[in-house]
Amino acid sequence: MYSFKNDYSEGTHPRILNALMESNYEQEAGYGEDRFTLGAIELLKQKIGRMDVDIHLLSGGTQTNLTALSAFLRPHEAAIAANTGHILTHETGAIEATGHKIISIEVEDGKLTPLHIKTAIDAHTDEHMVKPKLVYISNSTEIGSIYLKKDLEELSDFCKKHNLILFMDGARLGSALCATENDLQLSDLPSLVDAFYIGGTKNGALIGEALVICRDSLKEDFRFHMKQKGALLAKGRLLGIQFLELFKDDLFFELALHANKMAGMLRDEMIKANFKFLTHSPSNQIFPILPNSLISELQNKYAFYVWEKVDSDYSAIRLVTSWATKEEAVLAFIEDMKKLLK
Amino acid sequence: MYSFKNDYSEGTHPRILNALMESNYEQEAGYGEDRFTLGAIELLKQKIGRMDVDIHLLSGGTQTNLTALSAFLRPHEAAIAANTGHILTHETGAIEATGHKIISIEVEDGKLTPLHIKTAIDAHTDEHMVKPKLVYISNSTEIGSIYLKKDLEELSDFCKKHNLILFMDGARLGSALCATENDLQLSDLPSLVDAFYIGGTKNGALIGEALVICRDSLKEDFRFHMKQKGALLAKGRLLGIQFLELFKDDLFFELALHANKMAGMLRDEMIKANFKFLTHSPSNQIFPILPNSLISELQNKYAFYVWEKVDSDYSAIRLVTSWATKEEAVLAFIEDMKKLLK
Amino acid sequence: MYSFKNDYSEGTHPRILNALMESNYEQEAGYGEDRFTLGAIELLKQKIGRMDVDIHLLSGGTQTNLTALSAFLRPHEAAIAANTGHILTHETGAIEATGHKIISIEVEDGKLTPLHIKTAIDAHTDEHMVKPKLVYISNSTEIGSIYLKKDLEELSDFCKKHNLILFMDGARLGSALCATENDLQLSDLPSLVDAFYIGGTKNGALIGEALVICRDSLKEDFRFHMKQKGALLAKGRLLGIQFLELFKDDLFFELALHANKMAGMLRDEMIKANFKFLTHSPSNQIFPILPNSLISELQNKYAFYVWEKVDSDYSAIRLVTSWATKEEAVLAFIEDMKKLLK
Amino acid sequence: MYSFKNDYSEGTHPRILNALMESNYEQEAGYGEDRFTLGAIELLKQKIGRMDVDIHLLSGGTQTNLTALSAFLRPHEAAIAANTGHILTHETGAIEATGHKIISIEVEDGKLTPLHIKTAIDAHTDEHMVKPKLVYISNSTEIGSIYLKKDLEELSDFCKKHNLILFMDGARLGSALCATENDLQLSDLPSLVDAFYIGGTKNGALIGEALVICRDSLKEDFRFHMKQKGALLAKGRLLGIQFLELFKDDLFFELALHANKMAGMLRDEMIKANFKFLTHSPSNQIFPILPNSLISELQNKYAFYVWEKVDSDYSAIRLVTSWATKEEAVLAFIEDMKKLLK
Repeated sequence: MYSFKNDYSEGTHPRILNALMESNYEQEAGYGEDRFTLGAIELLKQKIGRMDVDIHLLSGGTQTNLTALSAFLRPHEAAIAANTGHILTHETGAIEATGHKIISIEVEDGKLTPLHIKTAIDAHTDEHMVKPKLVYISNSTEIGSIYLKKDLEELSDFCKKHNLILFMDGARLGSALCATENDLQLSDLPSLVDAFYIGGTKNGALIGEALVICRDSLKEDFRFHMKQKGALLAKGRLLGIQFLELFKDDLFFELALHANKMAGMLRDEMIKANFKFLTHSPSNQIFPILPNSLISELQNKYAFYVWEKVDSDYSAIRLVTSWATKEEAVLAFIEDMKKLLK
Repeated sequence: MYSFKNDYSEGTHPRILNALMESNYEQEAGYGEDRFTLGAIELLKQKIGRMDVDIHLLSGGTQTNLTALSAFLRPHEAAIAANTGHILTHETGAIEATGHKIISIEVEDGKLTPLHIKTAIDAHTDEHMVKPKLVYISNSTEIGSIYLKKDLEELSDFCKKHNLILFMDGARLGSALCATENDLQLSDLPSLVDAFYIGGTKNGALIGEALVICRDSLKEDFRFHMKQKGALLAKGRLLGIQFLELFKDDLFFELALHANKMAGMLRDEMIKANFKFLTHSPSNQIFPILPNSLISELQNKYAFYVWEKVDSDYSAIRLVTSWATKEEAVLAFIEDMKKLLK
Repeated sequence: MYSFKNDYSEGTHPRILNALMESNYEQEAGYGEDRFTLGAIELLKQKIGRMDVDIHLLSGGTQTNLTALSAFLRPHEAAIAANTGHILTHETGAIEATGHKIISIEVEDGKLTPLHIKTAIDAHTDEHMVKPKLVYISNSTEIGSIYLKKDLEELSDFCKKHNLILFMDGARLGSALCATENDLQLSDLPSLVDAFYIGGTKNGALIGEALVICRDSLKEDFRFHMKQKGALLAKGRLLGIQFLELFKDDLFFELALHANKMAGMLRDEMIKANFKFLTHSPSNQIFPILPNSLISELQNKYAFYVWEKVDSDYSAIRLVTSWATKEEAVLAFIEDMKKLLK
Repeated sequence: MYSFKNDYSEGTHPRILNALMESNYEQEAGYGEDRFTLGAIELLKQKIGRMDVDIHLLSGGTQTNLTALSAFLRPHEAAIAANTGHILTHETGAIEATGHKIISIEVEDGKLTPLHIKTAIDAHTDEHMVKPKLVYISNSTEIGSIYLKKDLEELSDFCKKHNLILFMDGARLGSALCATENDLQLSDLPSLVDAFYIGGTKNGALIGEALVICRDSLKEDFRFHMKQKGALLAKGRLLGIQFLELFKDDLFFELALHANKMAGMLRDEMIKANFKFLTHSPSNQIFPILPNSLISELQNKYAFYVWEKVDSDYSAIRLVTSWATKEEAVLAFIEDMKKLLK
């Protein structure tokens, strides 16, 4: 049974394991003050092209979201998110547990536009309601779509104008930036968003997200918040070593490109077979709509999530590829599908 | 410069790295439902001798403390801790950030007794004050002392009688249980405390603490709390693999014994040299009181914390040994000290 | 300019002022342990017909909601509310500020049904999402509708079956129970809901809500929560005296009946004039849909909220009557409307 | 049995009841936007001599403390308070429930000095600890002592220099400012502290504290925080009317002077009888140390708290006087004491 369930089914890229091994007996400072972490931060700043950002390495997406949002917001301030937003749906109320409401916006494609945000702002008129203050977007989104440069510029302009913090969850930023349709670069982000993170966990690391804080007023005392939320690892080196390895030779992008390529092969075949998709996704998660009978057959050999029922005969499934997805597994899946469709 | 600053200066035991490598490409379920984590939990239950406890693997001590305490307590309930308690001093208000006061008890040796707790309870008489509900102890304590079986039995009896939750921070439980003076075993703990954890990070793992919940009423829905606090790792296998490796051949205890042995060599030499100690510590942290001049000289070759000034000529230092401490480094330190004392 | 904006525009019923005056110099215990509060609680228990409930007097609706919900829920548990629910829309994230998510259910008439709740429960399947635990309803609702006995019995059955807490916000319970269509009595509530409150503020008191906790497991230590949230008044007598006065001769119901009667006069006239309503409301808030031109004219002499635009020519307005609404003001409004419609 | 237990045993000054009665049927806006509240705020600004402060009326001390501190502090920031501080001892962890640690400083006389604060700051060195940010003082203190102008100037200078917020709990500010030893005026406060409140509840009002925010950076959006914490009363007029009445003819100070005078009579008699005091208190709470036998006898006719045991024969009691304390009751107490001492 080969799994297309997610992009964190395997361990980590072997170069990372090698790097852990080679550095293993070096004595280093704890809590992210080791030379690996400091080096990774320096390297990331160079890759981003901005030495004035602050960068912190955390363990996972939920931890990064809750630590950042609770550090950035005052008690009465709320986040705005698409109804598909991870913080709204799959983090067990982590943001609310730090005291903040999330305003949900119904969208079709996982993406927020200035109009969505305007609607939310207009509906919050006085002190009897929370004050919308932070716009949370994911790139790629939870349903595989990506933000183009124009999308982000419009959002950024709007947020600046309305003094809103624009925050990008980049748990799958690698896949987004490596999508063929993408026109954004890492170096575009600091001038467009106030904070974002570069997801390692879903792009070949064991754990690790690199949070980049671009807006000066959000930088102060961030390590206090990390410690308070349990996000400062005693052996912070574990994060530093991984990000060094991922970025010193652009392994990070290599891995994302592979994941996207594998998804692309699956996508192309679905298109050839005339299947529709739940949503347009150029990244490593695709949501083809297949006949239920085909789904059942495929489930005998492949693991994946049935995402939602479309009608009595069809359902959308989610196929996720990763840095570790084997091309032969993708080819086998395609072969099996073709056979079943005959 | 050799460091005796802490027990998390190096990476991890090579067997753990090997285990990560060997299992690297196996596809597994995420969020702690992988076969490694399930296996580690099963193994730990056997080692503890109780199959009815619940075990969860988390990343670090602060994370474990805040997730557990916020899950166990209602909003008006408070924890009681020794003034040296890690949650009071070195977690940036992590417990308060989840809404709970910690009642501080002044102690000499890092350890709480029933009398201490009684004093705290007696001082909290009505609804104008928090309700003391959980007793937080560390074993070994933050200043190296350990709880003997008798100590723990007395605390346990008192807590049961007063319906208090007894919680043991075991970030350095390995060292405590392997101390020569110790008379406690892992299997004693479930009947004595309501929850405790077995610290991996400071005993040879990269990250990882195994929380053991013994009292039934504290078990419900714990994974919800882990997710909410950012403590469920997508690649939970990282924790599972490490605990499997640490416990399948008792590597965990082997490492703790080594750390204690190294500390013992340093301690014995200090005693021979007629130095006093800030506190009695049979574990891997010792606090000898040395002349300032000696301290200065030692600092040229060794890194360690100067813990506190004792008088104008003497200060207590903290020396921490670990699974990775090299015997030759300890011998060199001793040799250097002897030379300096001549 | 006469105001139909809300039911808290005036002070309080003169009998309450008299009672304050008569009792003014009696020395009493503080923090709700005075004889007035104790007497009011006793009296309320009799009126409710259940001596085993716990009753607490608090100052206002938001305070009562946040104190109760934070006392009743564990950190990962969420409330379910209609999208019109006061806690969702007009309490500045008070519930989220205590750490809990509110799951919003889109409804037409302000009321929740078992089907609504089932949908919410079914959508929350595991520890990656909050756990729905408490159902928040308002009676009368924020848009004037009321729960009939059958409605509440169905909800109650469903909640009991699914181990959900059923909580009724009764800020306008007086008006609901005195509506002509109503078939519920105060004494029905303890067996149908787990906790509810009897709103004083919007029914003739200066401040004051009487929270009735029916389910035993929710009662423990509630006064701790009140103190912690700033809800224990030093001069708790202020609340006790008012509730004594409101209930010793059923003044409470008398006042609600008056408010409803005034709303009824307005409603009848609107029906005669063939105006539609935004929603069916038998209580003291009505939402007639009027031509914009008429609204403008009426606004010259009367204050009220324009609730929402219906189409280019019509808008719904909100008219609220109260214990203090003068019949002559209602008659004048009707007269003016008739004239304007000629 | 006449009570000297506290200063909130009676209702309110009759002028306040009259004012409530006279204004009772005027229709006014809700939530503190009524003309009484607006008028009271204006009047208070004049009395304080600073039109640029922000003033908000809240119900009680705990509510004011928790709303202000949670609005003023970021999650990792802590308050510093004397060990006798009300927020530390008698508010059921209200501040911690909003997420903030309070650092306790052991003091003799209820008062903080720059040296105390320096010690706290020096002990908090990095991100593993909370960041001390707000200094909480009470005037008069919980044990009756008061801050002189010099005390406050020193504190103020220190706090400004270290970028600390200086917050004064003024639940008993009236008594402090009217003490014979006092050299502070209301108008001195805005330049000395960043926020303070003028307590009504313990100085003749039914409920009510007027929070004055002096530092500009603390003013933004404060009403959001009030609403979120349940502190915006629908009938905010109740607070406005009271503060108007208390300040339009300086009734506030008249009442405080009376309370102090009554305490002074008791104090003088204790001094004449050669009794010592637990602490020097020039305000309306005194803590004489009396023989236990005398205490027992007095308890037959008077209610008061026995504060603490001093030795086997003596205990300190707390006598509190108020705006409503009757001179004849004080004289009777004195007479009875004299008789018992013969």
